[in-house]
Amino acid sequence: MKKVEFVCIKCGKAYGADAPNFRCTECDEPLEAPEITSGRIRTETGAWGSIFQRYADFFPFDRPFPELDLGEGYTPLIQSSALTQKAGVKSVLIKNEATNPTWSFKDRGTAAALRHAVELGYKRVGTLSSGNMAASVAAFGARAGLDVFILVGESTPLEKINPVAMYGAHVIQVKGDYGDVYAASLSLGKKHGIYFANSDAPFRIEGSKTISYEICEQMNFEVPDYVIVPTSSGGNFRSIEKGFREFLACGFTKKKPILIAAQDIGICPIHRAFSEGRENVEHFDDGIYLDNAIANPFPPSGNRVLEIMRRSGGFSVAISWEDILAAQADLAHEGVFVQPGSAVSFAAARLLRKNGVFGGETTVACIVTGSGLKYASILERHALKVHTVALDALDDLIGDL
Amino acid sequence: MKKVEFVCIKCGKAYGADAPNFRCTECDEPLEAPEITSGRIRTETGAWGSIFQRYADFFPFDRPFPELDLGEGYTPLIQSSALTQKAGVKSVLIKNEATNPTWSFKDRGTAAALRHAVELGYKRVGTLSSGNMAASVAAFGARAGLDVFILVGESTPLEKINPVAMYGAHVIQVKGDYGDVYAASLSLGKKHGIYFANSDAPFRIEGSKTISYEICEQMNFEVPDYVIVPTSSGGNFRSIEKGFREFLACGFTKKKPILIAAQDIGICPIHRAFSEGRENVEHFDDGIYLDNAIANPFPPSGNRVLEIMRRSGGFSVAISWEDILAAQADLAHEGVFVQPGSAVSFAAARLLRKNGVFGGETTVACIVTGSGLKYASILERHALKVHTVALDALDDLIGDL
Repeated sequence: MKKVEFVCIKCGKAYGADAPNFRCTECDEPLEAPEITSGRIRTETGAWGSIFQRYADFFPFDRPFPELDLGEGYTPLIQSSALTQKAGVKSVLIKNEATNPTWSFKDRGTAAALRHAVELGYKRVGTLSSGNMAASVAAFGARAGLDVFILVGESTPLEKINPVAMYGAHVIQVKGDYGDVYAASLSLGKKHGIYFANSDAPFRIEGSKTISYEICEQMNFEVPDYVIVPTSSGGNFRSIEKGFREFLACGFTKKKPILIAAQDIGICPIHRAFSEGRENVEHFDDGIYLDNAIANPFPPSGNRVLEIMRRSGGFSVAISWEDILAAQADLAHEGVFVQPGSAVSFAAARLLRKNGVFGGETTVACIVTGSGLKYASILERHALKVHTVALDALDDLIGDL
Repeated sequence: MKKVEFVCIKCGKAYGADAPNFRCTECDEPLEAPEITSGRIRTETGAWGSIFQRYADFFPFDRPFPELDLGEGYTPLIQSSALTQKAGVKSVLIKNEATNPTWSFKDRGTAAALRHAVELGYKRVGTLSSGNMAASVAAFGARAGLDVFILVGESTPLEKINPVAMYGAHVIQVKGDYGDVYAASLSLGKKHGIYFANSDAPFRIEGSKTISYEICEQMNFEVPDYVIVPTSSGGNFRSIEKGFREFLACGFTKKKPILIAAQDIGICPIHRAFSEGRENVEHFDDGIYLDNAIANPFPPSGNRVLEIMRRSGGFSVAISWEDILAAQADLAHEGVFVQPGSAVSFAAARLLRKNGVFGGETTVACIVTGSGLKYASILERHALKVHTVALDALDDLIGDL
C-alpha cells in the first residue's frame, strides 16, 4: 500500500493506515484518508476495467486487485423526463446503485475495505449489519477467500439472514444492546484478528466516493446543482461529498453540487440536529421507520454530515412515509425498482420543489441505494393492478383496461 | 428503422420487420434477423455509452434511443481461481447477468424488443411470464411510457406478482392452458395493439446476443473453448450462438466456442431430444423442477437449439437438483449469488470435467442469468451457518469458529 495516514475529521490527529482504525481516540469522530488533489482518470481502461483500475490514482493501493472484483460500480445515471416532469424542475437524474453485485451501493465501500484488509494480511472480516452492508461484506469476503463474521440483532428474521448466510458467512444473532455490540465488534476484532468493515471504516468512504466520480464523468463534468443522498449512518453522504470535493480540487469540475441529506421523518437524528442548529447529533429515541436501511438512530458520521452541510450550504430534509411510498412507486413507474429507503431522495426532490426551495431551473441528481427486491413485503402497501380472469374473458378485460 | 427482414430459421421464408412477427406461418419455427457480417465496435463510447451505442452497427435501429436506457448490459465476467480449482479445469469465467437493471439477462432482449415496439409506434406491450421476463418487460415498458400487460398462470403467488406489478403493469392471472394463453396473447396482441415481447420475439435474440459480444471484448477476442448456457425456452442459447457467430463473421475472433445447453434433469426436453438423436423437441410431460426460470416443458426455440448443437459440435447436459444446489452454493461462496436455475451452468462444468468430457486444459465461460434474491425460499434447503448467542458469550463463540 502507498504511504497513507488517516486523520480525524474533527481535530486532524493522524493515525496509521496499517491497522483498521476507525475513530479518533480523542474526539470519537471517524477517521478519513486525506483529500486527493491531483490524478488522472485512466479512461484507457474503457468499458471493462474496474473502478479500482479507472480511478487508481485516487486510491492508496499499490495495485487494483482484480482477483477481488465482482463488477462493483459503473452504475447507470438515468435521465428521466417523466420524473423531471413530476418534480417540476429542469432535470432529474437517478444514480441507480441497485445494479451493483449485491444490489446496493455498499459494494463500492466494501470492495475498498476488503482491499485494505487483504493488504494488511487479515484472514477474517466482519461487519455489524442485517441489511445491505451485511450481504456486501459476506459476498466480497467470500470472493477474497476470507472467513466472514456478520453480527446481527437478535430479532433479525431468517428472511434477512439467509441471503447473507448464503455467501458462506457466519451470521451471529447477538442478544444485547446495539451500542454494546458495536463496541464489542471492535475489541473482539482486535483480539481475534477480524477486520470489521463497519459503516464508518475509512476505506468504505474511499470506495463510495466513486459514486461522485462517476456522476462527474457521466455528466461530462458539468455537475448538477443538487445531489440528494438517502442518509442513515452518514457514511455515504461523507463519501459523496469527498468525491465531488476531490474532483473539484483536481480541476476536473468547476463547482461542487450542494448536498442534501434525506431521512425518514420517523427516525431523523441528522435532520433534527440540523434543524435545531446543533453541532452534534443526539440519539433519536423511540424512532419508528419504514425501512431499516435508513433507520440509524445514532449515526456514527452524523456530526461530520452536519459540519459538511454548514460549510457548503447543504441541508437536510425529512420525508413522510406517504411521500416515501409515493416516490418508490414513481421510480418503479420509470423502471427503477428500489427499496423504500432509497426513494427518499426523489421524494425530497418533489418536496423541495413544492416548498419553493428548488426553482424550475434546478438540476438534481438523486442517489438510489438498493434494490426493491430487498424488501418485498412493503409491496403490499402499494395499490397494484392485479386481475384474475378466465381465458375466454381475457379479450373483454383487455378491452376495458 | 433500417430496412430489415426476419427470416424463418428453418425454411428461410422472409417476413417484414414492420410488425411483431415471431414464427413462420409455414414451419412454426421462430424468425430471426439476418446475421451481421461487418461493423465496428464504437469503443469511443467508453465506459458510459449504452450497449445500443457501443454496438450500434450490429442493430437495425436508426438511433440508440437513450431515453429507453436503464443501464442494461455491461455485466462482469468474473475470473475465479476458486471455481476453476473446484471444476479442475484451466479457467472458469462467470458472466454474471444478475447485475442488470431488473437483475436478469432478460433486460438485454427486452430493451431491444421495446426499441422495436416504439419504432413501430406501439403504445402497449406485454408478455407471457411470471418470472424474469415479466419483471423486465414491466420495467422497460414503464420506462418507455407504454401500457404493459403481463399474463401469468392462475396459480402464480403474489410474492412473484407484486414485484412485477410494482412497475405499474397490469398483471393478469389467466385461468387456462399455457399453450392456449400463448396463442391468445398473439391474437389479442394484434386485436388490441399490444406488442408481445415473448421469449421467441426476434428482437429479444438481437438484444441478448450482446452477451457474447461482451465476452469477446472482455477476453480480448480470445474466446473460451466452451460456453455453458442455462436453457429453458432456448432463446438465450440462440442469442449467444448468434453473437459469437457474428463476431467471427466480422473477423473479430478466430473461432466460436462450443455451446452447451444445461437443463434441470426434472424437466429437460432439449436434452432428452438431443440424447435420443431427434430433430424435434417434444413436450416434456409431468416435468418437475427446482426453479421455474428453467422449466419450459415445450421450448419454442428448442428445435433450433438442437440444430445449432448438431451443426457446431455442441451438446446438452441435464443436472440433478443436488448438483444444482451445490453449484448455487459454490457460486455464492465466490460472491455471486444467483437463482438456482442459473447455477446449472457451473454445475455442468464440474460434471463434464468429472465425466472426462472436459480436460484439465479447458477454458469455460458459465452464463449465470438471474439474481438469487428472486427465489429466496430455496435458501432453506442450504446448510447455512447461523448462530445465536448472548453478547457475553460472543468472544467464546468466535474463538470456537
